[in-house]
Formats: sequence, C-alpha cells, structure tokens
Amino acid sequence: MSNKVSVLVAGSWGTALASVLADNGKKVLLWSRNEQQVQEINQQHTNARFLPGVELSPLIVATNSLQEAVEDAEAVVMVVPSAGMREVASQIRPFLKQDALLIHATKGFETGTLKRMTEVLIDELPEMDPARLVVLSGPSHAEEVIRKSPTTVVVAAQNLEAAEAAQDLLINSYFRVYTNPDVAGVEVGGALKNIIGLSAGLIDGLGFGDNAKAALITRGLAEITRLGTRMGANPLTFAGLAGIGDLIATCTSKHSRNWRAGYKLGQGFPLDAVLADMGMVVEGVKTTKNAHELSRRLQVTMPITDELFNVMFAGKSPKLAAQDLMGRVRTHEIEENAFDAATKWQG
Amino acid sequence: MSNKVSVLVAGSWGTALASVLADNGKKVLLWSRNEQQVQEINQQHTNARFLPGVELSPLIVATNSLQEAVEDAEAVVMVVPSAGMREVASQIRPFLKQDALLIHATKGFETGTLKRMTEVLIDELPEMDPARLVVLSGPSHAEEVIRKSPTTVVVAAQNLEAAEAAQDLLINSYFRVYTNPDVAGVEVGGALKNIIGLSAGLIDGLGFGDNAKAALITRGLAEITRLGTRMGANPLTFAGLAGIGDLIATCTSKHSRNWRAGYKLGQGFPLDAVLADMGMVVEGVKTTKNAHELSRRLQVTMPITDELFNVMFAGKSPKLAAQDLMGRVRTHEIEENAFDAATKWQG
Repeated sequence: MSNKVSVLVAGSWGTALASVLADNGKKVLLWSRNEQQVQEINQQHTNARFLPGVELSPLIVATNSLQEAVEDAEAVVMVVPSAGMREVASQIRPFLKQDALLIHATKGFETGTLKRMTEVLIDELPEMDPARLVVLSGPSHAEEVIRKSPTTVVVAAQNLEAAEAAQDLLINSYFRVYTNPDVAGVEVGGALKNIIGLSAGLIDGLGFGDNAKAALITRGLAEITRLGTRMGANPLTFAGLAGIGDLIATCTSKHSRNWRAGYKLGQGFPLDAVLADMGMVVEGVKTTKNAHELSRRLQVTMPITDELFNVMFAGKSPKLAAQDLMGRVRTHEIEENAFDAATKWQG
Repeated sequence: MSNKVSVLVAGSWGTALASVLADNGKKVLLWSRNEQQVQEINQQHTNARFLPGVELSPLIVATNSLQEAVEDAEAVVMVVPSAGMREVASQIRPFLKQDALLIHATKGFETGTLKRMTEVLIDELPEMDPARLVVLSGPSHAEEVIRKSPTTVVVAAQNLEAAEAAQDLLINSYFRVYTNPDVAGVEVGGALKNIIGLSAGLIDGLGFGDNAKAALITRGLAEITRLGTRMGANPLTFAGLAGIGDLIATCTSKHSRNWRAGYKLGQGFPLDAVLADMGMVVEGVKTTKNAHELSRRLQVTMPITDELFNVMFAGKSPKLAAQDLMGRVRTHEIEENAFDAATKWQG
C-alpha cells in the first residue's frame, strides 16, 4: 500500500475528511483548482474560507494538479459538487490505479440525467468495478468533524469488502464508520435530506414552532423513503444514519447551509439573493429541481418537494406553501404500500 | 351527544388538550385535585403554574369532583401521570357512560406491572370495550398547542371507528389528527422517547455536537423499534409521528422537560437535585427504570437505556456513559431481524 490518499476537492467537507485521514496516519493529497487556496493550505495549514479558525495537519498537502493528487493513491475520496462530478471523474481516469478504492461523499443528483453519483462514476470510469464504488454519508457537519467531535457515518458498496476497506481507512476514536450494502438508499437519503433541510429552515423562518418542524421532518422521511424505494433502495436504510440521522442534523443544526438558506427564504428573501449571500454551493436547491423532475418521471408523490419547488421557482409565497403542506388532507398514518416495499426488497 | 367532554388532569398537556376541545365548541370539564387551581381556572381563566402567560377559553370549566367531570361526558380524555392512571381509572368507573369515548395521552408504563396505559385502563374499566380505547401521541409541546401553533398527532385504537371518533372530536385547523391501528406501537413510542430525550439532553449538557446528537437519536429510534416490535408493535409506527416525530420534538426543543432534566444531569447535577429543580413530573425517569426492566424480561438489547440507567441509578459518570455509547463496536448498520419483524407484523 502506498499510504497515499487523495481527496478532491478542498471544500469544507473534503477538508474535514482529509483531516480524519491525516489523523489516521495517511499522507493526504488535497486537490483544489484555486492556487491561492493551495498555497494557504501548504504554507499556513489553514483553509479559512471553508473552515475558519482551524489548524490543519501538516500531513495534508494541497495541490492543483489532479495527476499529482491521484497518481499512486491507494484511495481517492471524491467530494466534488454534484455539478462537477462527471468532469472531474473523466479527468482523473488516466491517473487512477485500477485497484484504488474510490469513495464519494457528494449529496445530490446530476442535473439533466438525474443520475446518482455512483452512476455518474460508472459512466466515466469504465475500468473500475462498479460493485466496489463506495458512497459515504450520514450526520456529519464538517465544522464538528474537524474539531474531533464524535461523529458516525455510513459507507455503502455492493461489495462488502470494498465497504469494509473504506471503513478501515476512515474509522478512528471520534469518527465511527458503519457499513451498509444499499448504495442507492445511502445516495438518495443524502441527496433528498437537503430538500427537507431547506423546508425546515423555511418554516423556522416563518416562525412555526417545534411541533410543526417535527411533523415536517417526519413527513420528509416518508417522502424520501417513498422515492428511494421506487429507485431500488432498502426502506430500512432511511431509518438509519444516512436517512433520519442526516435529516435531523440538517434540519436542526445551525451548521446546516441548506437550513440557513431555507430560513432566509422563509423570511421573504428571493432565492437569488439568498444564494448570493451564502457564498457556497447549496446542493438542496439543485436537488429540489431534480427531485421534482424525478417524482414526475417515477410517479411518486412528493408534497414537500413540490411546495419548495413552487416557492423557489414558481413565485409561491412561503407562507401559503407551508399552510398548504400543513393542511393536506390525510387520515391514516401508515401508507399501505410501505410493507410491500420492505418485503419486496428482502426477497 | 351531550357535547360535554372531560379532561383529567389540569397539567400542561391536559390544559392544552382542553383548549383544543374548547376551540372545537365543546363544553370542557377539566379536573384537578387542587382547589386553588380550580378557582384560578374558573375565575381568572389561567393555569399559571403549567402554562404561564396564557388566557384560557371560558368554555373550560374546572372542577375537583370526578363525578361532576365525568358524568354524562361523551368523551373522557385522560392525561394523568402514569403513576396515577390506575387509581383515577378505578375512581371514574362508577360515573363513566358505557358508550363514552375514552382517550388517554399519557406517556409511560406502570411501574411494577410494566403495563402499557391501555392495559391498565382495561384492568380497571371492565365495562369498556378494549378495542375502543384510544391513545393520543405525537410531537406536541403543550406550550405551542395552546398558542395554536400547527401540530400533528396520532390517535390509535384497534377499532377504527373509535379512532375516527377521536379524530373528529379533536381535529381543527391547527391541530391535525391522524389515525393508526397500532395501539401498542403508539404507546411504546410515546413512553420510550422520553428516555432518548433525557439522553439527548445529557450529551448536550456534556458539550457533544449536533453530529453526535443526530447519531444518538437514530440509535434511539432503533432501540425503541426493537423493544416495540418485541411488544407486538408495527415497526412502521416508529417511522411516524408517534415514533421519530415525537423523538425529534423531545430531543431538540427547549420546551422538553425530559431534555432539560438530561441537560442538567450532563452538567453533573445528581438526579435528586435535578428533579427537585424541575417542579413537574419527568416521566422519562420512571420510564428509564421500567424500560431497563422490560429489556431484561424480554431480552432486548437497549444500550442507551442501560447507560442512562447507570447514570441515574448506579452512579456512573455521564461522560463515561456517553463515551461507552459512542464507542460501541458495531459494524453493519441494518439489523438482520428488522425485516423479519416487519414481515411478521404484516401477516
């Protein structure tokens, strides 16, 4: 083993994962397109724009060369925004060792194709064994991981050995890693939770209370589970860290960008102004558009996604959207097809 | 129909439910043993100890006579602390109309017998049809309901018609009521969430972060589901309002007494001092003892309950308990018997 691990790119989550790997004794190559950021990481051992006030391990070396980052790496951790995943995957193809472990930690679908991130990776990296692609997800604010606050995540791969290799690579005393065979479920959970995070922010911005927010998260979990099982996921995955766990962290923490963006929407600011103000990618905005399209293609009812889409892209007032959500006519709590889905997946 | 509904007793949740019923045009008889509180409610239309700063509807009439409260009532809503449920049930027996709708909203088990609250009611009220007993639960802080903040709850009864009668009685524009046939699941979820609420407060009091808390709630849901299915509940109930919904509201809201008590435990105060300071019943304390005993009798693993029990009753330091919880060796996320439970319940 080369003991070299590559992390792409140097955003807040990429830098936090690089820090976990450095704590585990790995030599970490952290890729960034931004020359100034590369110099800051290598000379000052900080990444102030994304993780202010934190000193990074000297084992983390930044580079703006993809070749230098990826060549000879025993593992490559991709934390590229969903919009850039295909391009970066195609660019690393010539340098990637065929037996390298490929882990991604990106939460979203590809706009247009509506593919999950492992599907994009399979398209662009035909030499890799698809069953060995790993997705990492779970309730994990970068701001806490970098401070070694106890955190639990899930790694999923069809091939258990690959998931366990990712677990071995990342696990330590403050970063607990569980395996799960359900790649689709872990990816869908990670993507869709951002929609509910935005919606939770929105109702908080409107001044609704904790009862309403708990109901929204519960209904959000049902909505995620519905689309996820339609896409081939195991419904039980959504009861775990990559489902309800991540949902709670996203909907109730001040660290959540998606919640913060939703909060401003709820206060009446238009989407353009909110995004300009954030200064970072808010994956949930694209995911809302993509999930709205997926729900139509796959004929899955997604009332929260629909209302958030209406607020962000069709000029609906946040207050009216929230009222329409709360007032929906439903009488029985458990959906009849939920059992069918669980049973089907088991067979 | 007499249009008269009885609510026992005038704590914060009882008073909030009385207020919902008054908003729905019912004549509400609210029972309290405390003569001073009866006078305050009838003369000043306030219940300052339990819901400070709130004016109550004049349709709410307080009484300290159980006979006056219950006689001729079309429905009786029991919000008695779990320790008093059996006694109050036996006392209302002579006055209760046989066709009255009986709803309880108490979250706990009976100490000693470890029975659920409907089981206690069945013991003491042999004239009632057990299938028509209704339990009400869900994410519903009284402080928000009394201010008409949007809230969703579940009513469960074996007899659907009884659950729907409870739904008709309580539903309005801000109080949304869903039905569910799973009485055991709704009762177990409501009781056990207080254990996780105490634990969440404890790790917040220790200064752990949002990642750790999201993981705790996720593992808490698994623990509740495990005991609940062993007790005959439908595992899907715990993915709904009476499970994860109530769990979120209890673990993340400043309104939660159980969270507040746990927070003080986490800061190092002993249990006696914490309880003396609260001035209200903290159901989770008794429930921790009872669930600890249930987990032994039924041979169900409940690590969070065990650690909280050790902190409260065996002198273990909160920090060590939290560390032991986070460091537990687990590798695969989904438990093998979860599918079996879901399938079994379906049959």
